[in-house]
Amino acid sequence: MFCGVDIGGTNAKVGLVDKSGCLVDHDTVKTALYETPADLVLTLAYTILRLAKVNRVTIEGIGVCCANACALDGTVENAANLKFKQKFSLTELFRTYFPDTPIAVDNDANAATLGEQHYGKAKGLDDFLFVTLGTGVGGGVVCNKKLVYGFNAMAGEIGHIIVEPHGRPCGCGRKGCIERYVSAQGAVDTYFEICRENHIEPKTDRYRELAALALASDPQALQTYGQMGYHLGRFLANLACVTAPTHIFLFGGVAQVGDILLEPTRRAFNENLLFCYKDSIKIELSGLMDSSTDAAVLGAAALLFR
Amino acid sequence: MFCGVDIGGTNAKVGLVDKSGCLVDHDTVKTALYETPADLVLTLAYTILRLAKVNRVTIEGIGVCCANACALDGTVENAANLKFKQKFSLTELFRTYFPDTPIAVDNDANAATLGEQHYGKAKGLDDFLFVTLGTGVGGGVVCNKKLVYGFNAMAGEIGHIIVEPHGRPCGCGRKGCIERYVSAQGAVDTYFEICRENHIEPKTDRYRELAALALASDPQALQTYGQMGYHLGRFLANLACVTAPTHIFLFGGVAQVGDILLEPTRRAFNENLLFCYKDSIKIELSGLMDSSTDAAVLGAAALLFR
Repeated sequence: MFCGVDIGGTNAKVGLVDKSGCLVDHDTVKTALYETPADLVLTLAYTILRLAKVNRVTIEGIGVCCANACALDGTVENAANLKFKQKFSLTELFRTYFPDTPIAVDNDANAATLGEQHYGKAKGLDDFLFVTLGTGVGGGVVCNKKLVYGFNAMAGEIGHIIVEPHGRPCGCGRKGCIERYVSAQGAVDTYFEICRENHIEPKTDRYRELAALALASDPQALQTYGQMGYHLGRFLANLACVTAPTHIFLFGGVAQVGDILLEPTRRAFNENLLFCYKDSIKIELSGLMDSSTDAAVLGAAALLFR
Repeated sequence: MFCGVDIGGTNAKVGLVDKSGCLVDHDTVKTALYETPADLVLTLAYTILRLAKVNRVTIEGIGVCCANACALDGTVENAANLKFKQKFSLTELFRTYFPDTPIAVDNDANAATLGEQHYGKAKGLDDFLFVTLGTGVGGGVVCNKKLVYGFNAMAGEIGHIIVEPHGRPCGCGRKGCIERYVSAQGAVDTYFEICRENHIEPKTDRYRELAALALASDPQALQTYGQMGYHLGRFLANLACVTAPTHIFLFGGVAQVGDILLEPTRRAFNENLLFCYKDSIKIELSGLMDSSTDAAVLGAAALLFR
């Protein structure tokens, strides 16, 4: 039995995952209650041991994912969504309680990519891209069945590819990153632009409400996803030239609207794709989308397959 | 002893390469003289056998590179620079004369990338990009020491990444591909634009003369390379986010101007690079640039290391 731990800003999720990718049991820890990484990991370790005892299983490996975690040394530094800004080693903290258990640490996008590969729709695929669309935009690049890490384990930072050189300012200090157009906040910004152009008062400034408006066929909200799909499709057509994947999986809160985003994305993708890849690359929703708890924990557990 | 064969539109180069990457002997065949692929390969086979006999060596493998060659099945179809437009199998044609010798076929950009890895500056590197700047723009992507092929052996078609959505028309049928800005013809087009803006009569419409003008410090020619470097540097900064390479090697006729292109490229690269890669990725000229004959033949021979 593997254990997957997904450390988010609000909650940390702990789950027991069997080798077929079935979530056997799980629990949640409120991340924000803890003042130090050591305190948080103590509670996570306790939760893991309790779950193992209740379910009468042996933990054969622990996979931990967290924003900004580095796969090379298991450290986390300056994670945007955590209280603790100083650098700390997740591997070392977990090792205190599990000295003989394999421990794998990585960022959330890489974990989800491996989750897709081992438990989702990417089983058996050689070459695919995994794109997370949420608060931020991230990704995982799989070539020859292997996740690409690059020299600093920061490959796949595709959210910060610049698509509009003089475009919207990005938190990374530059302008026009794709993240500023197809993330949750990017969607809201586009919606505001469209409302302004149409001299209409925006109905919301929150992403979840915008998504609900689109699902309810609000014209400006639908137009927002049309524009997002246009940006995303063009972007993915360019990305396809680098590694020639067979599949591109979309994951995360923003992808949950489904066809409202998928259709314009596929249209722009096909319009902009180089002839030699035509009709050969599928854009699909991730196979891990059904339950957000499961996806994160499965992804974390899948780190043990690296 | 390996044999490398580089089939170009004007000449095909045949060379004997020892395992350290030393070109022991070589010869040239005029590609354009031959009416069929079979005729050309007959002469190439004869040339290989003659070189082997003269040098008293055994050929342990033959690597063949050609524009549009497909690594998956060794076929070539519709190569822009060859007379023969129909599909033919280089592997099968060479197999007629060398039934028991390993034969490897690939396109020229992939061959040059492997040449860099085995005989050039990329020896021992895990993650690098190789960018060819010539009549066209192509590339090779190496992750975890392996050249990325993708599903159709067409990964690395980075020349057709669109950088200006409403930009210059490209031979691929779309607009604004990076190839239209940093290839030889792209350079000439930029030079013409600059001359027009400055109300100056262009001094040439040929790439080689433009390069010579820049080396002689002609202001408009220098400005041309400044703009090319700006485009190329921004483009490479985006590309770095995908695979996080330690090195980017520039190769081909257009790269031969050296610092005139390299300096503005590095400047734009550093200005546009995401913080997490800063000061860690080197842009350098290929180590195979000294002799164009050697580079192509070494690259072809390096295919045998795949």
